[in-house]
Amino acid sequence: MDPVRVGICGLGTVGGGTFDVLTRNADEIARRAGRPIVIEQVGARRDNPDCDTTGVKVTRDIFEVARNPDIDVLVELIGGYDVARELVMTAIENGKHVVTANKALIAVHGNEIFHAAHKKGVIVAFEAAVAGGIPVIKSLREGLGGNRIQWLAGIINGTGNYILTHMRDEGRAFDDVLAEAQALGYAEADPTFDVEGIDAAHKLTILASIAYGVPLQFDRAYTEGIARITAEDVEQADNLGYTIKHLGITRRGDNGIELRVHPTLIPKERLLANVHGVKNAIAVMGDAVGPTLYYGAGAGAEPTASAVVADLLDVARNIATAHRYLVPYLAFSGINDEANALPILPMEEIVTAYYLRLLAVDRPGVLARVATILAEQSISIEAIIQKEATEGELVPIILLTHRTREQHMNDAIRQLESLADIAGPVTRIRVESLDEQ
Amino acid sequence: MDPVRVGICGLGTVGGGTFDVLTRNADEIARRAGRPIVIEQVGARRDNPDCDTTGVKVTRDIFEVARNPDIDVLVELIGGYDVARELVMTAIENGKHVVTANKALIAVHGNEIFHAAHKKGVIVAFEAAVAGGIPVIKSLREGLGGNRIQWLAGIINGTGNYILTHMRDEGRAFDDVLAEAQALGYAEADPTFDVEGIDAAHKLTILASIAYGVPLQFDRAYTEGIARITAEDVEQADNLGYTIKHLGITRRGDNGIELRVHPTLIPKERLLANVHGVKNAIAVMGDAVGPTLYYGAGAGAEPTASAVVADLLDVARNIATAHRYLVPYLAFSGINDEANALPILPMEEIVTAYYLRLLAVDRPGVLARVATILAEQSISIEAIIQKEATEGELVPIILLTHRTREQHMNDAIRQLESLADIAGPVTRIRVESLDEQ
Repeated sequence: MDPVRVGICGLGTVGGGTFDVLTRNADEIARRAGRPIVIEQVGARRDNPDCDTTGVKVTRDIFEVARNPDIDVLVELIGGYDVARELVMTAIENGKHVVTANKALIAVHGNEIFHAAHKKGVIVAFEAAVAGGIPVIKSLREGLGGNRIQWLAGIINGTGNYILTHMRDEGRAFDDVLAEAQALGYAEADPTFDVEGIDAAHKLTILASIAYGVPLQFDRAYTEGIARITAEDVEQADNLGYTIKHLGITRRGDNGIELRVHPTLIPKERLLANVHGVKNAIAVMGDAVGPTLYYGAGAGAEPTASAVVADLLDVARNIATAHRYLVPYLAFSGINDEANALPILPMEEIVTAYYLRLLAVDRPGVLARVATILAEQSISIEAIIQKEATEGELVPIILLTHRTREQHMNDAIRQLESLADIAGPVTRIRVESLDEQ
Repeated sequence: MDPVRVGICGLGTVGGGTFDVLTRNADEIARRAGRPIVIEQVGARRDNPDCDTTGVKVTRDIFEVARNPDIDVLVELIGGYDVARELVMTAIENGKHVVTANKALIAVHGNEIFHAAHKKGVIVAFEAAVAGGIPVIKSLREGLGGNRIQWLAGIINGTGNYILTHMRDEGRAFDDVLAEAQALGYAEADPTFDVEGIDAAHKLTILASIAYGVPLQFDRAYTEGIARITAEDVEQADNLGYTIKHLGITRRGDNGIELRVHPTLIPKERLLANVHGVKNAIAVMGDAVGPTLYYGAGAGAEPTASAVVADLLDVARNIATAHRYLVPYLAFSGINDEANALPILPMEEIVTAYYLRLLAVDRPGVLARVATILAEQSISIEAIIQKEATEGELVPIILLTHRTREQHMNDAIRQLESLADIAGPVTRIRVESLDEQ
């Protein structure tokens, strides 16, 4: 059969990795696809010294690739929002299939892109956009297709997990480990995207849409970072039998969908709690299959390339058929009809358990006043740790609560912070059992 | 679009679960498939009291389903070899697609079945045959399609893992836990298939073929059960930093493919070591993606149904296209050509590390004689534990060796067992680091 002709735009880390994997494994890939997958053109602002592009057309103008009539599939690996969007839309207008690793692009402009692709009858594939090499999009969209997905929770940012892993294993402070991660190249000079959870929220937005068949709604995602987690929180969580992980969590309830990224205490014995360093993992609960988990490298040149090539294989297998795209972009057909009316819930309406850390003046009655405030909000306490203090000193109180509505907890925290006995802000970290509820 | 019309043969645990999931989630399944998937007929020797088949044609003759012109897909859930084979071949001859959960059928008769299906242009899908609801076939065959798979190792028998988990957690003996598993319905009255590793070898055979693109060769798989693992082995492994799991392992080397099921010591910190009870998990190493892992329920009515329905979705999406089967049955086209000449290695040629437990007479020089025998076979020792004994008593010696060829270890064990100082047979359990080597 005729080869599938690929144009790669962007020849940085992931572009170079994709180039290498397609070249190195060309024979096996052709045997899998039933036809060769060849790199016809590369569009990149500069050469990649690690990539030998001998024999491949190279252009500095990526839009030339999007318009090249000899290209079947454009692989978008330039990243970012605006230029990437324009590039992908141009490729679609020119009837090309698109494979992208760009989570920001899909989370923010996906609805528009899929609409255009659907009209044009082309594939837009984005396995590499979530959790790097882990085939979680395929698993969720196809492998668990018989299930009503109930919830999923994932470690979907390697930088954040690297920092939390080293904070726990070595008892170190956030800033200290972040600086190390930056020195090692695991964190960017400006780490905002990773440590504030924006990158994870992009990925979670995509996963939730595929899980439930709802439109992409990145602007409705709740996002909280890990910068305020202290070494003491990590230690206290450990004492209580928990590990702190930065999770993306989405759950489908009767009234709507929870969509939230925040630090989370999870029981130590969960597999997710045992995912260390820069690795990613996603736990998915389906009504038929029960709990499942997918683990692997969430970033890096070749892991991301692995997902890009898997998408190219899907394109290669489908390209010859009359029906251009067999699996709906977001798993379900009719994403915008009334069947998808389930809204994203405001954060105040989610229900979860909480870990609280308060600094109290060591006076009689403090604990009673704290307990009273919680009781008035119908929040019941599961555990309390109060450290001994020398007289007159501030003493930390650690509380673990049962599940309650976030609104009640917000009200309680406001009142706790207004107590004369309580110094400074209350630390609040959500707790998820991730059992089969 | 027209519905896909399904005939379910076998209405036991998995058949009933499939019936329930297809009925309960019919709306979401139709939105995923782009068309309804309806149960047109059920073939079963007896009714399932948990299944309300009102409105569905039910026949006692499963072959009637295979010949029914109103059926698009036959779902084979009767299990076993001969009748299942005849049923599936009849369905294929009649131009029907087939979905099966039958690992024994695929492992033993798969080559013949796929050959017939290929000629007829029909799909034979078998996600449910390996690891129940975990979409590992799809992940390996499609999601990791860009990789050269290097090795995989899996807990692919829930009964065995249940027994080993309870032996470890409670320090109990094999027979004791097996009896409990039988009472709870986790083990069959005749547990041979599970505890001797035959069921795991069926699944491993399928995974290896898909990983490397080689024909199914169940008869070449090495199979060793867990019945001889003692509570002491479990405890000693723990002292050494390992957990004993019953693994299916396949690795591709330059000279051939390892294909083996046996008890294995793996480092405690591996995710696989933290997979407990009846759950399954498969670790897969690809050259691009690195290590990945897939976890979930490996058996049970609805988890298995989850995989059956995922296959039905694939069939439903492909049924309308000109190309009847887009993903090759065993992942690669041309399974039998010279590209697949890599043989399954005899067990004597595999290379691994070993745990040995010897019972020695407590005499001076025993350890020296043991060490000499190992040295003569070029086997180097990583760790020794020798317990103190009261004089004249037998004392256990625990050895951990570095990696060596199985043939050398066989020779060494033969010589060790012939020593006058050593009582009874030497216990040998293989050790795998499962790191990124």
